[in-house]
Amino acid sequence: MLGYRNIEPELIEKAAKIKILFTDSDGVLTDTGVYYSERGEEMKRFSIRDGMGVERLRELTGVETGIITGENSGSVRTRAEKLGVIEVHMKVKNKLEKMLEIAQRRDLKPENIAYIGDDTNDEDVIKYAGLTGCPSDAVIQIKMLVDHITESRGGNGAFRDFAELIIHSKLFLKCK
Amino acid sequence: MLGYRNIEPELIEKAAKIKILFTDSDGVLTDTGVYYSERGEEMKRFSIRDGMGVERLRELTGVETGIITGENSGSVRTRAEKLGVIEVHMKVKNKLEKMLEIAQRRDLKPENIAYIGDDTNDEDVIKYAGLTGCPSDAVIQIKMLVDHITESRGGNGAFRDFAELIIHSKLFLKCK
Amino acid sequence: MLGYRNIEPELIEKAAKIKILFTDSDGVLTDTGVYYSERGEEMKRFSIRDGMGVERLRELTGVETGIITGENSGSVRTRAEKLGVIEVHMKVKNKLEKMLEIAQRRDLKPENIAYIGDDTNDEDVIKYAGLTGCPSDAVIQIKMLVDHITESRGGNGAFRDFAELIIHSKLFLKCK
Amino acid sequence: MLGYRNIEPELIEKAAKIKILFTDSDGVLTDTGVYYSERGEEMKRFSIRDGMGVERLRELTGVETGIITGENSGSVRTRAEKLGVIEVHMKVKNKLEKMLEIAQRRDLKPENIAYIGDDTNDEDVIKYAGLTGCPSDAVIQIKMLVDHITESRGGNGAFRDFAELIIHSKLFLKCK
Repeated sequence: MLGYRNIEPELIEKAAKIKILFTDSDGVLTDTGVYYSERGEEMKRFSIRDGMGVERLRELTGVETGIITGENSGSVRTRAEKLGVIEVHMKVKNKLEKMLEIAQRRDLKPENIAYIGDDTNDEDVIKYAGLTGCPSDAVIQIKMLVDHITESRGGNGAFRDFAELIIHSKLFLKCK
Repeated sequence: MLGYRNIEPELIEKAAKIKILFTDSDGVLTDTGVYYSERGEEMKRFSIRDGMGVERLRELTGVETGIITGENSGSVRTRAEKLGVIEVHMKVKNKLEKMLEIAQRRDLKPENIAYIGDDTNDEDVIKYAGLTGCPSDAVIQIKMLVDHITESRGGNGAFRDFAELIIHSKLFLKCK
Repeated sequence: MLGYRNIEPELIEKAAKIKILFTDSDGVLTDTGVYYSERGEEMKRFSIRDGMGVERLRELTGVETGIITGENSGSVRTRAEKLGVIEVHMKVKNKLEKMLEIAQRRDLKPENIAYIGDDTNDEDVIKYAGLTGCPSDAVIQIKMLVDHITESRGGNGAFRDFAELIIHSKLFLKCK
Repeated sequence: MLGYRNIEPELIEKAAKIKILFTDSDGVLTDTGVYYSERGEEMKRFSIRDGMGVERLRELTGVETGIITGENSGSVRTRAEKLGVIEVHMKVKNKLEKMLEIAQRRDLKPENIAYIGDDTNDEDVIKYAGLTGCPSDAVIQIKMLVDHITESRGGNGAFRDFAELIIHSKLFLKCK
C-alpha cells in the first residue's frame, strides 16, 4: 500500500477535484474470477476491504461511487446495493457513452471523475476521466495509460488503495 | 511461521497474562473475501488451520476465543458455533465499547485481553488490548500499531500464528 | 504478460496459420480447483479475462475456440455456452483421437490448430497441434513440450495470454 | 515440482516398498479453506491435478489411496468417491490408532505405508509411516518430521507432487 507521505503532487491536485469514483467490476472489485455451476453463473468474490473504501470515501470526503461493467451479474447488483453505490450500470457495451450520459445528468466535468479499470474495454473511459488507476495485475495496455497503478491486485484491495489515495490527498490538501 | 525460540521477551510477558483472545472476522479469519450471488451474500472462506488454533488454545492453555465484527454474516455465526467460540458479536459499530462491556462482565483487565485485527475500524480496540497482532497483509495504519505482525496472511493462518505465539509463550514460561 | 514487440519470429509464423484454438479446461481455464459439497461437484472458477480473450480472438482475427477435456462438468458446459465456444467436448478419454475427428470434419491441418494444456493427458495433442502453449504452473512434462509458456497461471489469464499471442502475431504480420 | 533425476536414493528405496498412500484432507487436498454459509459448512475446494495423481498411482504402479481426517465433511466423502479412494475415514480422533487398525486388516507393515499431512495432529502417524511428506506450507512442527517437503502448496498440487515422487521412484527402480 501507498506510503501516504509520498503521493505525487500531480495526483494530489487531480484528487482534490474528484466528486465521484467509477470502477469496473471484474478484475478490480474481483480477481477476474467467476464461479459457474451447471446452472450457469453462481457467484463472484468481493473484498470487505473495498467495501470499507466505499464507506470511508463517502464519510471522510463526500465522494460517491459508481460501477460501470460490460457484464450482467446479479452478484454485482446485490453487492452494490449492500454498499450503497449510487450509479450501477451493467451490460454496458460502450462505457464512454455511458459515462458521458452520467456526467451530463450530474453536471460533472472530466476532472471531477475518477476511474479504475483493468482491461482493454476500459481504454476509452480511462482517456476521458480526470484521475485514473488500475490494479497491479491489470493488462499491460491499461497499465500504460493510467495515472496510478495500485499496489494491490484486483479483488484484493486495488479499489481500496485507489480510494485511500483520494482520501489522503483530499485530507492532506485541507491541512495545507 | 514464527521460530518459537525467538519470541521476544516482552511478548512472552504479555502473553502470560492473556485469558481471552478476541479476533476480527473479515481479513483475519478470512482473506477479506465475501462471495455474493444474485440473492446477496452467500459464503465466506475460513481456514481449518485457524480452527485448530481455537482448539489448541483452549486445550493447552485454557485461553478462550471471541469474535467482534462490524459485519453481520450468517457464515461467521455458523463457523463460530462449530468452533465453540464463547463470545460472538456481530454488527458492532463501536468495537471498543463492546469490548469494555465484555471486560466488565467477565472481570477482565486490558492485560488479560489479546486482539488481532486488520483494518482501520480496529484501531481503538488495538490501543486498549494488552497484546495485539495483525495479519501480514493488514492495512498500514494497523501494522504500525500492533505488538506482532504474523507471518501468515488473513484467512491463511494469521489467527493460528497469533494463537501459537500465545500457546508457546505460556508453555515456555511454565518451563522456566 | 508478453511484451508484444518481442514475440519470436517462429511463433509469429506459426500463429499466422491458426484457424482455431483448442484449450483444456482444468488447469488452463481454471486454477485446477473444483468445489465439492456433500452433493458432489458444485462449481468451478473461471476468469472473465479469458472470456474476453475468446471474444477478442473472434472479433479481431476470426479465430474460433474449442474445449477438449477429460472431465464431465456442467460448469464447463454453461461457461462455454456463455462465451460461444463452437466445439465443446467433455469426458474425452483420447484427446488426440477427438482432435483428429474435428480436424477432418472442419478440414483443418495441424498447422491450423493451436492448443493449450497443462497436464500429462495433453501430451499427444500437444505433439500434434501446430502451435502449443501451457500455463506457467503446468506440470513439468508439459512445459518441456510446448512452443510457449504463458506468463500467467491457469485460471488467472493463461488462456488470455495465449490468445493475445495469436492476436498480436496476426495483426503484426498484417502490418508488414 | 521435483526434478525427477534428482530424487534422493533413500527416498527411492522407501518408495519402492509402498503399497498404499494415505493423506490428510484439509491442508493437503485443500488449501485449508472451508466455505461456510448461514447453513454451516457448504464446500471445499479440491484440485483436479491431485485427482489425476490418484489415477496415475493406481494405473502406473498399483498403489492405492486412503484418506484419514479429523473433520467430518460431506465434500470430502463425495470427492473421495469420485476418485475411487479405497479407505476413507473421517471424524478420526486418533489417527495412529486408525492406521494401525487398517494396517492389520490389510496386512501392511509400516514400510508399505506412505503418509502426507500438514498439521500437528498428523505427528503420530508421520512417525509411524514408512515414507512421509508434507506440503510446502505445512506447519513447522510437521516440516521438521517428514522425509520430503513437496514443492507445491496444499490444495495446489502437494498430493500430486508426492504421488509423482512415488511413481517416478518405482518406475526408475524398475529400469535398473
